[in-house]
Amino acid sequence: MKAAHPWLRAHGARGDEDGWGQMDSYSPRTDLAIEAHEMARRRAQTVPGVEEETEALDGIRVSRVHVRDRQGEQALGKRAGRYVTIEVPGLRRRDPDLQQRVAEQFAKEFERLLNVPEQASVLVVGLGNQQVTPDALGPKVAQRMFVTRHLFQYFPDLLDEGYRTVAAVSPGVLGVTGVETTEVVKGIVEHVRPDLVVAIDALASRSLNRVNATIQISDTGIQPGAGVGNKRKALDEQTLGCKVLAVGVPTVVDAATIANDAMELILVKLKETVPGNGASQIFDHFSPQEKWQLIKEVLDPLGNNLMVTPKEIDEFIDDVAEVVARGLNLALHPSMTMEDASQLTH
Amino acid sequence: MKAAHPWLRAHGARGDEDGWGQMDSYSPRTDLAIEAHEMARRRAQTVPGVEEETEALDGIRVSRVHVRDRQGEQALGKRAGRYVTIEVPGLRRRDPDLQQRVAEQFAKEFERLLNVPEQASVLVVGLGNQQVTPDALGPKVAQRMFVTRHLFQYFPDLLDEGYRTVAAVSPGVLGVTGVETTEVVKGIVEHVRPDLVVAIDALASRSLNRVNATIQISDTGIQPGAGVGNKRKALDEQTLGCKVLAVGVPTVVDAATIANDAMELILVKLKETVPGNGASQIFDHFSPQEKWQLIKEVLDPLGNNLMVTPKEIDEFIDDVAEVVARGLNLALHPSMTMEDASQLTH
Amino acid sequence: MKAAHPWLRAHGARGDEDGWGQMDSYSPRTDLAIEAHEMARRRAQTVPGVEEETEALDGIRVSRVHVRDRQGEQALGKRAGRYVTIEVPGLRRRDPDLQQRVAEQFAKEFERLLNVPEQASVLVVGLGNQQVTPDALGPKVAQRMFVTRHLFQYFPDLLDEGYRTVAAVSPGVLGVTGVETTEVVKGIVEHVRPDLVVAIDALASRSLNRVNATIQISDTGIQPGAGVGNKRKALDEQTLGCKVLAVGVPTVVDAATIANDAMELILVKLKETVPGNGASQIFDHFSPQEKWQLIKEVLDPLGNNLMVTPKEIDEFIDDVAEVVARGLNLALHPSMTMEDASQLTH
Amino acid sequence: MKAAHPWLRAHGARGDEDGWGQMDSYSPRTDLAIEAHEMARRRAQTVPGVEEETEALDGIRVSRVHVRDRQGEQALGKRAGRYVTIEVPGLRRRDPDLQQRVAEQFAKEFERLLNVPEQASVLVVGLGNQQVTPDALGPKVAQRMFVTRHLFQYFPDLLDEGYRTVAAVSPGVLGVTGVETTEVVKGIVEHVRPDLVVAIDALASRSLNRVNATIQISDTGIQPGAGVGNKRKALDEQTLGCKVLAVGVPTVVDAATIANDAMELILVKLKETVPGNGASQIFDHFSPQEKWQLIKEVLDPLGNNLMVTPKEIDEFIDDVAEVVARGLNLALHPSMTMEDASQLTH
Repeated sequence: MKAAHPWLRAHGARGDEDGWGQMDSYSPRTDLAIEAHEMARRRAQTVPGVEEETEALDGIRVSRVHVRDRQGEQALGKRAGRYVTIEVPGLRRRDPDLQQRVAEQFAKEFERLLNVPEQASVLVVGLGNQQVTPDALGPKVAQRMFVTRHLFQYFPDLLDEGYRTVAAVSPGVLGVTGVETTEVVKGIVEHVRPDLVVAIDALASRSLNRVNATIQISDTGIQPGAGVGNKRKALDEQTLGCKVLAVGVPTVVDAATIANDAMELILVKLKETVPGNGASQIFDHFSPQEKWQLIKEVLDPLGNNLMVTPKEIDEFIDDVAEVVARGLNLALHPSMTMEDASQLTH
Repeated sequence: MKAAHPWLRAHGARGDEDGWGQMDSYSPRTDLAIEAHEMARRRAQTVPGVEEETEALDGIRVSRVHVRDRQGEQALGKRAGRYVTIEVPGLRRRDPDLQQRVAEQFAKEFERLLNVPEQASVLVVGLGNQQVTPDALGPKVAQRMFVTRHLFQYFPDLLDEGYRTVAAVSPGVLGVTGVETTEVVKGIVEHVRPDLVVAIDALASRSLNRVNATIQISDTGIQPGAGVGNKRKALDEQTLGCKVLAVGVPTVVDAATIANDAMELILVKLKETVPGNGASQIFDHFSPQEKWQLIKEVLDPLGNNLMVTPKEIDEFIDDVAEVVARGLNLALHPSMTMEDASQLTH
Repeated sequence: MKAAHPWLRAHGARGDEDGWGQMDSYSPRTDLAIEAHEMARRRAQTVPGVEEETEALDGIRVSRVHVRDRQGEQALGKRAGRYVTIEVPGLRRRDPDLQQRVAEQFAKEFERLLNVPEQASVLVVGLGNQQVTPDALGPKVAQRMFVTRHLFQYFPDLLDEGYRTVAAVSPGVLGVTGVETTEVVKGIVEHVRPDLVVAIDALASRSLNRVNATIQISDTGIQPGAGVGNKRKALDEQTLGCKVLAVGVPTVVDAATIANDAMELILVKLKETVPGNGASQIFDHFSPQEKWQLIKEVLDPLGNNLMVTPKEIDEFIDDVAEVVARGLNLALHPSMTMEDASQLTH
Repeated sequence: MKAAHPWLRAHGARGDEDGWGQMDSYSPRTDLAIEAHEMARRRAQTVPGVEEETEALDGIRVSRVHVRDRQGEQALGKRAGRYVTIEVPGLRRRDPDLQQRVAEQFAKEFERLLNVPEQASVLVVGLGNQQVTPDALGPKVAQRMFVTRHLFQYFPDLLDEGYRTVAAVSPGVLGVTGVETTEVVKGIVEHVRPDLVVAIDALASRSLNRVNATIQISDTGIQPGAGVGNKRKALDEQTLGCKVLAVGVPTVVDAATIANDAMELILVKLKETVPGNGASQIFDHFSPQEKWQLIKEVLDPLGNNLMVTPKEIDEFIDDVAEVVARGLNLALHPSMTMEDASQLTH
């Protein structure tokens, strides 16, 4: 009986680095600008360099965060630009009417950020690992795109008829391909030469009620470290040479966030209960490093790869991928109707 | 635009009861007798009515918990009987040699509890929902069984050759079939008339290091409330009229357990830090009801349906189902060799 | 190096009997009464004991074959009863409007055959092997049923509100479970005690244009040998003790049918070409046995398990399962609207 | 009720061209050089410019066809180069020992054609559509590759330890991405800059006994029109700028081939039966165009997209992908043992 390959034993079969990474303190992880803004506002009354407006529609809440400058960037840890968040608590209830309305609202918000000529060509990039349920959003949306790029040589009039040139690829993830996603995407971009890249990705949220119930659109591209896995290196105008819009849906919450929240909550309760200033100081005294140490103890030994999801994640991912794809198809092809979009998206 | 069906809005599309159930206090949920024993021993030095022995093999730890009587039942919250736990931290590393050895060890332990005549007929029942990754263990094992029942009429000599009569079904879950699992299984048992039922199920563990790295076998059948979903009503000798062995693998930890652990841990740290008896009493003063209330606040609004899993759950479930199925095929057919089992299991 | 298990080598890993079965002559296999009628009419001008009426709607053709008596049974090889066939060539084009209209038409035709009291309870049985794409129709429909049986104890008023008691199970196939499907279904029926069983199955058609474009409903139950696999023994009023409606969709054509058609066609062409009565007689002289022998030669060595399908079978099966499930949900619950059905079916 | 989008109605939802293409006569389609050689030898005693040698091992037959020159190219319709075919009728029986031996034999044959320096870097390209079972071979192999390219920056010594730099991508198919596969692959190749591309693809065979039981390796790259779908434009040294090895497994037979075979067979039988030269001439008189017309009549209306497969295709594809991936991992990494390969491939 031979022991396992020694190299594997050290590095894991896939050679992925899991575990805790280089972090030495903790702040709850979020890929949503709206949550970063919430956290910043908890620390300080006003957050200079950041603007936010909110609109409530029937069961749909649209928030538009504008990170205006370097100051805003630092406060939120998000690059300057526009972030639109569509929150729909009912999205998990599988109501087709609501799904339809969300797709339409998504299309509207997306078009506002779109800002490319009518005949612009588009490459949709579905990021993430198709084989890992909560990370499969990107590939699932890419598969549902109404692609037209290959049709224009046979039907050149399509452009005039209001269809844009759309292509859609799923580049895979580093652990499976051995190639940085950015490299793969660059290679394809250099051949396809789109005017716009739309990058779709699964996100992590800080709040459970946003999981599978929120869509974020931004005009800043995708920065390193975003998403469930490590999709190192940016996908943005600088790296790809064309405008990049990013679309994301939080599909998980880090288990560390749950542990952190539980600790915070009990400290708050203790402060309310225990009288006297001295005690209160004690409860405040945990340093970020100490807290991070405690979180690690709770989640040991599986570390950073733990996620919290609802049991029905498999179904939810399919539903939300359908909504995003329908909205994108609607937004990308000016002459497409909602009815066409339903037909052409699956 | 019509609103969603009102009944749905109230009850959820599947009619499942999710949310928090009837619990009004919290103790971390576990389906493993070994963990229930650990928790009981933390509360009291000795746990009367319960015996445990442990054996360490190369990378595999086997624990045998024997709940001897009513006293033991109450201390552990587990029915009297034998519970064998095979713990293999390395199982998540996908080492085929180790997988093979675990299958063999499983077969040995299973045979010890088997205790049926050589020509006994067996029905394997794969519990759980095939469409929900961490709940799909049972159906995935059932599909991999080497079934022979239908062959005996054509090849009656098989019995003499050391093959048992084996059948395998996956009855589905209440939320999808509309029928209590127990009813479906009873109906099939009355027609198939096996001497033994082997029930396979996904479990919840209290500890992250046991997820997808532990197999429990017991001779007590399956009791209400066990497993990830609610598979109400027991599957045991009393309800089915024949011996029932249960095989389970923890595939998730409740998110509530993580929240609870984080709270516990910070209270312990505070006790160490804050001097004086008075403070210490404060930290002990949280009642189970209060703690449960805090946990709910952390996990609100998604409630009880939240689970913590490693990202690679999809792969892990397939691997562990293969190991269990191989071990079962080996144990159920006396003349099957390990090599046959590898061939016949997929 | 050990050779494969000898028993396996003789019987195949699953122990299934594949190959050619007991047939010693060939007539193209069809599970559709409408095709059996077509073939009978080709042999004789009139087919006594059989009536057929046809209705053409916009893109949908409904045929109602009534096998009236023993004479009709023998002519068609189908049991006496009613067979409704809904043919929709456009169904493969994925047009949601058309899909919706087919679901509605299906519901209407199904209700005509339904003939049970308003408060009747129903068990939907999804026949076939979930793991084999063209055989997975039954389980895929069963999973999409709006099941209510488990809700009535909590919400007894549902009956008055126009919802029937519906349960849905997928019993698996003999080769995987080791148990005759009929036995499993009987066991469940005896516990669930429905007033009506609806059995869903994938069928084989004789004609390629009917594949994934046709739905058959009949009030005769399901007879041995129907469907893609061998689901031996009948599911009908006699075996189950309650009314049985069968719903089927042809998802494949036997490869033998293609081979047979090619031979027939070339013989027809030769007759037209070669002058003289003598030659014509020669072309007619192939006995059914001889023709069967030739077909076997063409398909050797994979035999009877060969099927002809369009490449996109995976997508088609999902679509048609959705249409059937939506139609069934609509038909089974009197107060359900088409809109509700869309919402509740997935 | 709005009708389907008119453009869709004309072109199909995916915009694929299906149907019959531009062919105006028929010769059975094969992607295997060994079959092309068989057919050529049936037409003429000797085939100049082509050499073939055969080796029979225990249950495995290896044939090596060498197309030497232009003359050979024309006779076979295959580009000049080497084609190795590994035929294993037992591969469909799921015998792990045999699978292991085939993986080893594959590795040996692959290494003979490999002919790159020990430190060469490799890009594996999995061609085909992941969502269409018989076309999914390429992506399934690519996912199972032991990729190392991303590890070399952390573990530069790997090269010395006998591991090559391997990356693996699945570029998708034109109908889903809107981009020619060749363009996607070129883009990635220009960034990854491998010394060798290994292209994996599902093939069509002319003979049923080769389906899922045969592996072809060639050093000619992949030419337009090969495989199940239309993967237009070549992947070879000329287009990619580096050596290209192609690996293929026939997973289907064209339905047209079955129809053609049936016609041929009956004509042969008639010749034997009908006396006289005149009749014999008649049976020979069908022109290729006429025969093609007859085949189309048989397969109408689904045309060229029809394939013949065994029912168990889903299982077979997974098994054969595992064998190919294991063999490739073994061949690409000089210091990998068979045992490592089993561990590292899933």
